[in-house]
Amino acid sequence: MRLSRYFLPVLKETPAEAQIASHRLMLRAGMIKQASAGIYSWLPLGYKVLRNIERIVHEEQARAGHIAMLMPTLQSADLWRESGRYDAYGPEMLRIRDRHERDLLFGPTNEELITDIFRGHVSSYRELPLTLYHIQWKFRDEIRPRFGVMRGREFYMKDGYSFDLDREGALHAYNRHFVSYLRTFERMGLQAIPMQAESGPIGGDTTHEFLVLADTGESEVFYDAAVTDIRMGARDIAYDDRAACQAVVDEFTALYARTDDTHEDAVFEAEVPEDRRRRGRGIEVGQIFYFGTKYSDPMGASVTDPEGHRVPVHMGSHGIGVSRLVGALIEAFHDEAGITWPEGVTPFHCGIVNLRQGDAATDAACEGLYAALAAKGLEPLYDDTEERAGAKFATMDLIGLPWRITVGPRGLKAGKVELTSRRTGESEELSPESAADRIAQIYGV
Amino acid sequence: MRLSRYFLPVLKETPAEAQIASHRLMLRAGMIKQASAGIYSWLPLGYKVLRNIERIVHEEQARAGHIAMLMPTLQSADLWRESGRYDAYGPEMLRIRDRHERDLLFGPTNEELITDIFRGHVSSYRELPLTLYHIQWKFRDEIRPRFGVMRGREFYMKDGYSFDLDREGALHAYNRHFVSYLRTFERMGLQAIPMQAESGPIGGDTTHEFLVLADTGESEVFYDAAVTDIRMGARDIAYDDRAACQAVVDEFTALYARTDDTHEDAVFEAEVPEDRRRRGRGIEVGQIFYFGTKYSDPMGASVTDPEGHRVPVHMGSHGIGVSRLVGALIEAFHDEAGITWPEGVTPFHCGIVNLRQGDAATDAACEGLYAALAAKGLEPLYDDTEERAGAKFATMDLIGLPWRITVGPRGLKAGKVELTSRRTGESEELSPESAADRIAQIYGV
Repeated sequence: MRLSRYFLPVLKETPAEAQIASHRLMLRAGMIKQASAGIYSWLPLGYKVLRNIERIVHEEQARAGHIAMLMPTLQSADLWRESGRYDAYGPEMLRIRDRHERDLLFGPTNEELITDIFRGHVSSYRELPLTLYHIQWKFRDEIRPRFGVMRGREFYMKDGYSFDLDREGALHAYNRHFVSYLRTFERMGLQAIPMQAESGPIGGDTTHEFLVLADTGESEVFYDAAVTDIRMGARDIAYDDRAACQAVVDEFTALYARTDDTHEDAVFEAEVPEDRRRRGRGIEVGQIFYFGTKYSDPMGASVTDPEGHRVPVHMGSHGIGVSRLVGALIEAFHDEAGITWPEGVTPFHCGIVNLRQGDAATDAACEGLYAALAAKGLEPLYDDTEERAGAKFATMDLIGLPWRITVGPRGLKAGKVELTSRRTGESEELSPESAADRIAQIYGV
Repeated sequence: MRLSRYFLPVLKETPAEAQIASHRLMLRAGMIKQASAGIYSWLPLGYKVLRNIERIVHEEQARAGHIAMLMPTLQSADLWRESGRYDAYGPEMLRIRDRHERDLLFGPTNEELITDIFRGHVSSYRELPLTLYHIQWKFRDEIRPRFGVMRGREFYMKDGYSFDLDREGALHAYNRHFVSYLRTFERMGLQAIPMQAESGPIGGDTTHEFLVLADTGESEVFYDAAVTDIRMGARDIAYDDRAACQAVVDEFTALYARTDDTHEDAVFEAEVPEDRRRRGRGIEVGQIFYFGTKYSDPMGASVTDPEGHRVPVHMGSHGIGVSRLVGALIEAFHDEAGITWPEGVTPFHCGIVNLRQGDAATDAACEGLYAALAAKGLEPLYDDTEERAGAKFATMDLIGLPWRITVGPRGLKAGKVELTSRRTGESEELSPESAADRIAQIYGV
């Protein structure tokens, strides 16, 4: 993308309303613009990151054998009356009446709707196990929306629903999600620690939250410092292998890690050596639940088991906060100058800064680099504007592309451009061809 | 995808509520399920088609230089009061009040919101031309929703907004959209004929609708039969080339083609030889508008021109009905047995039918084919269930994958499988390797 043809409205001033780094940086980097309280438009740069996160979630869900579909944003109130949650949900549910005076709501979650789909189409254990998921906009009428997309009212979320014949099958589905979530977050460059949590209005007693450690997190967390050393890495776990999935879950949950809802001082002190006890804050980016027959019972979602009996299915639901992750990533990856995107989610693979726009040789070298990168399937952001170098660097630092290639007449005389890491600030001089090759190598293309 | 692990709830009976082929077939093929009146869940098969259409729209918009972003579903009523459309819009607008008694609405279109973003960030002609678009769920509270996703209440639409300094620039943006829409629909295998139309509540006097001819279309259309012979084909039009874009528009609009809103009998008879006069019905799948300063004037969206004067920007808006296209495609591509997807949008590249599930050699051949196709980047749907052959064929015909590979013990003895075209019904015997190569060749991978 050529910056002269892009829409990147960066702000010089720090917006007064933004209290935390991610909100401030998303506004300053031209990623979002507030449309109304807690409701945002995603400007082009922000939308690209959102799509990258969505793509990673889809890919990891597919890998786990989960099936993508899409439920609507608006739901009938009647389904929620069936489960008993219509009245229970309270004022955070946005209730709507249509022109025929029928009650609708803007879905905050989809247990009722997916259970309705299931009961309408599935009747035998032979069709199980089944996990359906979607990524859709949801609404929660927060009384005091804040922190930008981290606690907005309209938010984008992946929610998946697992259906199994029995508790054992459902717990495998739970473990499968556990493993896939670890992979998903690690691909984004994030460490999200699974912690024991409370289930809230979803229900059930088996649940883990995945939290990114950050001072601005909304949850207080207590954990064994050793838990931060565990990674999924590249281990090759087959999702059908129950024992292998269970082993991963066991390893990640062996050490103490709880949110304040479930924290117990006595257990913490008994289990964790004093020098490893940590108390901090975390941003919740995912949560998994096993809640058995909480919805299938009242809504009559049952299947015939191998003996011919009708039994209610065992369900779980499993969420990832897709739009919230954009904020969480920035909380985890920024410095004084701006955002420092990990390669997994960066909106552009690298920047190209032309130090003397209009100089024939410099322009030609930039165009050559641009074409070479595009030919490798990479997408650079080429700053081809008339801005002075300092402003171009400041914008690149602010929007946080992991790599910048700087092209100027002086370097070109020696056949060199400069490749700079946003994270470390380290630079290296090399030929334009080598710079393109290096970027391709970094992204594995 | 293995059918045994997929969620494809096909129906044997024809649902009574469905009046037209696309609605009937989408229900029968397990593509959608109604959630409430005019609101649908997209089951996995339907969702795949929707995503394919969305991807093609994104790719062609990017090619035309238009910039993707995303506006929220809910909008503030205040913006619509500024343009004067809040009261004008009538009962099709879904009006919502939040917990703080603020008026919101579920956006049916986004002229106001995009104009607000523009005026907040763009102030000079140097930043023009600019076209921003998004693909987002919208809502129109149809008094009598029907025809499934063709006339639903919650629908998925691409709407793009062009901003230019003057009328001439804006008309080029209009022409660029014209060309890109032709390419978009042709990539889906569809012929959508641009016709003179009325602008309705969007405003302006320059507008074309793109219509797919179909008996079930909601619009009556009048056209010169010769217009159906024109195609974009592979012509290489540069989107910056104003004359080249204009020439395409001139060619496609030279012949009479109008909806009943703009049709004039006298002109029709004067311009079209009697044997080429056609009267039929069409499904609207896209519409482009140039409306000048209708929104920029009242909302104060202006830029400084090269002489330093503040002038309101010239705008256009340009829509493609993404969810509606799924229905329109089926209206155009089906037969007695089911859907006949064009290759451009098919949910799976081909089907594999195992005629004797459980037979070691047949299973192995199917698995080999499945792996070979996947290795080429293709996605087959492998019917690995215990159903009898007749039922498997009926399901494949119903869901309409363009190609089916049938694998059975008898053919395998001669080293052959059967490759069948869904469109023509023609079959050919060839080796499994050749069948995989043929499919790859068809899809150009």
